[in-house]
Amino acid sequence: MKKGDLLIIGGNEDKNGELLILEKFSSLCKNRTGPIGILTTASGFPEEVGNEYKQIFSQLHGEEPILFHLDTREKAEQVDIPERLSELSGLFMTGGDQLRLTSLLGGTTFYKHLIRNWHNGMMVGGTSAGAAVMSRLMIISSKTIKNAEASILEMGSGFGFLEDVIIDQHFSQRDRFSRLMRAIALNPQIIGVGIDENTAIWVQNNGEFFEVIGEYNVSIFDGKKSTYVDIAEKSNKNMTISDIRFHTLGDGAIFDLQKRELKLP
Amino acid sequence: MKKGDLLIIGGNEDKNGELLILEKFSSLCKNRTGPIGILTTASGFPEEVGNEYKQIFSQLHGEEPILFHLDTREKAEQVDIPERLSELSGLFMTGGDQLRLTSLLGGTTFYKHLIRNWHNGMMVGGTSAGAAVMSRLMIISSKTIKNAEASILEMGSGFGFLEDVIIDQHFSQRDRFSRLMRAIALNPQIIGVGIDENTAIWVQNNGEFFEVIGEYNVSIFDGKKSTYVDIAEKSNKNMTISDIRFHTLGDGAIFDLQKRELKLP
Repeated sequence: MKKGDLLIIGGNEDKNGELLILEKFSSLCKNRTGPIGILTTASGFPEEVGNEYKQIFSQLHGEEPILFHLDTREKAEQVDIPERLSELSGLFMTGGDQLRLTSLLGGTTFYKHLIRNWHNGMMVGGTSAGAAVMSRLMIISSKTIKNAEASILEMGSGFGFLEDVIIDQHFSQRDRFSRLMRAIALNPQIIGVGIDENTAIWVQNNGEFFEVIGEYNVSIFDGKKSTYVDIAEKSNKNMTISDIRFHTLGDGAIFDLQKRELKLP
Repeated sequence: MKKGDLLIIGGNEDKNGELLILEKFSSLCKNRTGPIGILTTASGFPEEVGNEYKQIFSQLHGEEPILFHLDTREKAEQVDIPERLSELSGLFMTGGDQLRLTSLLGGTTFYKHLIRNWHNGMMVGGTSAGAAVMSRLMIISSKTIKNAEASILEMGSGFGFLEDVIIDQHFSQRDRFSRLMRAIALNPQIIGVGIDENTAIWVQNNGEFFEVIGEYNVSIFDGKKSTYVDIAEKSNKNMTISDIRFHTLGDGAIFDLQKRELKLP
C-alpha cells in the first residue's frame, strides 16, 4: 500500500488569481473518491478560515468539502471521527499556530485515524502552521529579534508525515535563514526545508522525493556531511559549522530526499 | 615581499567598550613604524567620523593618526599623496557608501600608491563600506524589499585586495542572505563572505587564510562545486542552484581561502 502524497505550502498561497497550488491539491485529491476535509484547528479564526477554503475547494474539486472544527481534545475524540475521516480523499490543514495542532490533536482518535488513512493513500496538505506540523521534529517558535544573537528556538514533535526533515515556512519573506540554520546545527542528521510563500513541495512515492511548485524558492540545508560543529561549546551567535550543503530550488525542481540531491533535469 | 594583512569588519564595531576589533587593527599596525591613516572618503560626515576614529586610534596606537579627507578626485591626485601614504603603518577605511570610494579614488594616485604600499606590507583595514570595497568584485547595492523577488543587485569593481571573494557586511543584522546567494549564483567561482556587525576577518599570509575575530558570525558561500545553476534561464525568485557549500564561522575559526575549507582546530 502506498502512503498518500503530501502538499506542503509555505503560507500565503494565492487564493484569488490562478490558485496554482490549491488547484494542485484539489486535483491530486481526485485520484481517490470522497470529499476534501478542512482542518481548522491551527487557526484562531476557524469559521472565517474554514469557510474561505470551503468555498475555494468546492469550486475547484466539485464536491462539497467537510469542515473539521476541532478546538478541544474532547472534540477530537468524538465517536464519528473515524468514519468521517475514512470518507475523505484528502485532508487540508489551515494556517495558524502549529502548537495548537499538536497540543489539541496529538495522540487523539483524530490523529490516529488521520495517520491510518494517510498510510492507506489519503492525500494530506497543509499551509503555514499546517506545513510546519508535517515533520516529526517541528519548529514551534523562535525569537526573531533583528539580531544574530536572538535565535532562541523552541522545537517539539510534529505529526510525523516526514521523518528526517524539518520544515520552515514564510522562509524568504520572514528571513528565517538563521533560525533554520540553528535547527540544523542542533540536528545535523535532519534536512532543513525552508519554503517560501505561495510555494509548495509535493512529496511523492512514500516520501522518496518532492517537486517544487509555485512562485518562489525552496531552500535546503543538509548538515549530514558537515565536518565540524561546535554549537555544544559555543553560543548560537558565535558557533562554527563547516560544510553544510545548501540548495535553492525553483518551480519544477525535483529533490531526492533519500539521496539528498537534486534530480537533474 | 609579503603583502600587508587585511582586517575586514562587518560594520558597527564596538567603539566604547572592549574595542576588541579596533585594538586588533592598531596592534597589527605596530608591526611597522609610522602612524595609522584614516580614509573618510566613503562617509557623508567625514569630519565627525574621522575625528572619532582619530581619537580611538591615537589612544590605542599611541601615535597621532593622519586623516585623509579625499572627497574629490582632484584631492586624490595631490602631489604629496605618495609621501603621506608611504609613511603609514596602516590605512583604515571608514564606513559610508562604497561607491564613493571607488568612484572618487579608483585609478587615482592615491589608489595606485595605496596598492603599492600594501604590496610592500602596509596593513589595510576597513569597516562596512570600507569592507565591501576590499574585494575585486564588489556589491554596490541591492533593493532589499522584504520579498524574495526583490533582489536587484548592483555590482562593480572594488579595490581588489582580495581576488576570488565577494564581501557583504552587516550580514545577519540586515538579513543579506538572499543578496549574497544571488551574487554567488551569478559568480559561482567566487566565495561569498558575509560578515556580521562587530565581527571581522583577519586575512593573513598573502591572502592564504583568514581568522574570525569578534562577537558574531561570518557566513561563507562557496559555489565552485555547485552541480546545477539555472539563473540564466530563470528569474531570481524562482532559480535553482544545487550544492552550494556553506560554512558559518565564529570567533577564532580559521578558513583556508585557497582550499576553501575550515582549518580544523
